[in-house]
Amino acid sequence: LQIETLAIYGVGLLGGSVGLAAKARGIARRVIGVGRSAERLAEAVERGAIDAATTRLEEGCADADWVILASTVSHIIELLPQVAALCKSSAIVTDVGSTKATIVERAERFFPRGGPVFVGSHPMAGSERSGVVHASANLFENACCIVTPTRATPSREADQVEQFWKSLGARVARLDPAQHDRVVATISHLPHMTAVGLLLAASGLGEDADRLAKLIGNGFRDSTRVAAGPPEVWRDICLENREPIADNLERLAEDLRVVAEEIRDGDGDRLLERLQRAREFRKRLIP
Amino acid sequence: LQIETLAIYGVGLLGGSVGLAAKARGIARRVIGVGRSAERLAEAVERGAIDAATTRLEEGCADADWVILASTVSHIIELLPQVAALCKSSAIVTDVGSTKATIVERAERFFPRGGPVFVGSHPMAGSERSGVVHASANLFENACCIVTPTRATPSREADQVEQFWKSLGARVARLDPAQHDRVVATISHLPHMTAVGLLLAASGLGEDADRLAKLIGNGFRDSTRVAAGPPEVWRDICLENREPIADNLERLAEDLRVVAEEIRDGDGDRLLERLQRAREFRKRLIP
Repeated sequence: LQIETLAIYGVGLLGGSVGLAAKARGIARRVIGVGRSAERLAEAVERGAIDAATTRLEEGCADADWVILASTVSHIIELLPQVAALCKSSAIVTDVGSTKATIVERAERFFPRGGPVFVGSHPMAGSERSGVVHASANLFENACCIVTPTRATPSREADQVEQFWKSLGARVARLDPAQHDRVVATISHLPHMTAVGLLLAASGLGEDADRLAKLIGNGFRDSTRVAAGPPEVWRDICLENREPIADNLERLAEDLRVVAEEIRDGDGDRLLERLQRAREFRKRLIP
Repeated sequence: LQIETLAIYGVGLLGGSVGLAAKARGIARRVIGVGRSAERLAEAVERGAIDAATTRLEEGCADADWVILASTVSHIIELLPQVAALCKSSAIVTDVGSTKATIVERAERFFPRGGPVFVGSHPMAGSERSGVVHASANLFENACCIVTPTRATPSREADQVEQFWKSLGARVARLDPAQHDRVVATISHLPHMTAVGLLLAASGLGEDADRLAKLIGNGFRDSTRVAAGPPEVWRDICLENREPIADNLERLAEDLRVVAEEIRDGDGDRLLERLQRAREFRKRLIP
């Protein structure tokens, strides 16, 4: 894969890392950063994540052979009609949004047949850090990127987007957008909201934070790490992936109520069976 | 601190690590392992975690100046009356049980005034691994150990037990047994049961485990790591610390139901406030 001009909208952790990785691996000859903050763009230039910068979307899209939308889900949704209208008809557009059904649906409405092609992507390489300052050329190495073409997506472009992420070092899986949203609600969004719940439970102990800080171990640290992520991003994810996340939260809440009952009843057999089943499943997932 | 003869009942991950650490740091001149399985004891001798081994409790207790009960909570509770009866009157006995109210209550019933002294300990250095094969002389370094003396505990022995764990590299905090159980229910047991719930939610997706394995990221891995721990140990913890864990599970379940509602209602402000509050609290705990 060899891209002449790659435009990246949003040069934070993910967008910045795409720029660094695409340049380090010789995938893009020229990388243009696009965004709203001239200051952040300047920092990205300085860090070598992009070669040039503009705050004008039309300027970013004009020459771009590829466009990566690396902003929040709600902002990506806002951008799609303009990007569809501004890009060359030969351009390939993808994104990094962590929910896919709404984005892909909107893209399919606004990207005209015979024009630029949109293929949804979700590189699962976020981190609790944000900003180009934490961007890295290795961010996607061994990360999983889910690509979400639909029946309407030309297979050539779907393959190229898959190839793009592989070139940055990622493993790629394909899911349809709705199934993507259900799966990530369970394996990513649900863990985030339970981490938030665990922290609020700890804050409700009424222990002094400094004292509590002495008591927590690696378990609590790991279990709540994701909740260090940027709140605005996660609010958007919750709002964009409402039904699957709410369904998951309700099912987990019901499950935890059942466990509480088993514990009060002293039902050691059921508890053991549950603990074993979870552990076995984890072993299959993470050998 | 200089212990002539240290007896460790149970030479798994924790007991084995106590042995290795006490020897490496020159705290104990002689370490005797006590347990039910001659085979496991032999392995502990071979790994240098203990100098000698016996399957007879009376033999282990006879010469011991210190006894560490490093077994499961339910087994520690079983052992206490015998240990109280078998130890020298000058002996100090402590444990590693992860719940404290039941253990300390029982110890105070069976340890006679003027006899050996029991002080409850909970070194929070467990790991999802178990067995002496994973024991390490550094396990307690920078881990937190909660020591739970009561008003009935002589302060000299309480101080010595605190000193013991510090000598193995741990930070020590003191809590009364009931408060200990409430705090660890929230910062350790609750995260364990939510990790189990997250895994069972993922197994309920109906996706093939191999396929799902490709999709999970560091977030899911970290959020569920604790659930790789030994199921029997965690069943016991749930049964021993019933009320605080069940209370915590019910409160979290209710909290997650409220979040699900906020998400369905699209209440971005409340979601953002919740996410920010959790993140801020985490920053105070883990700067």
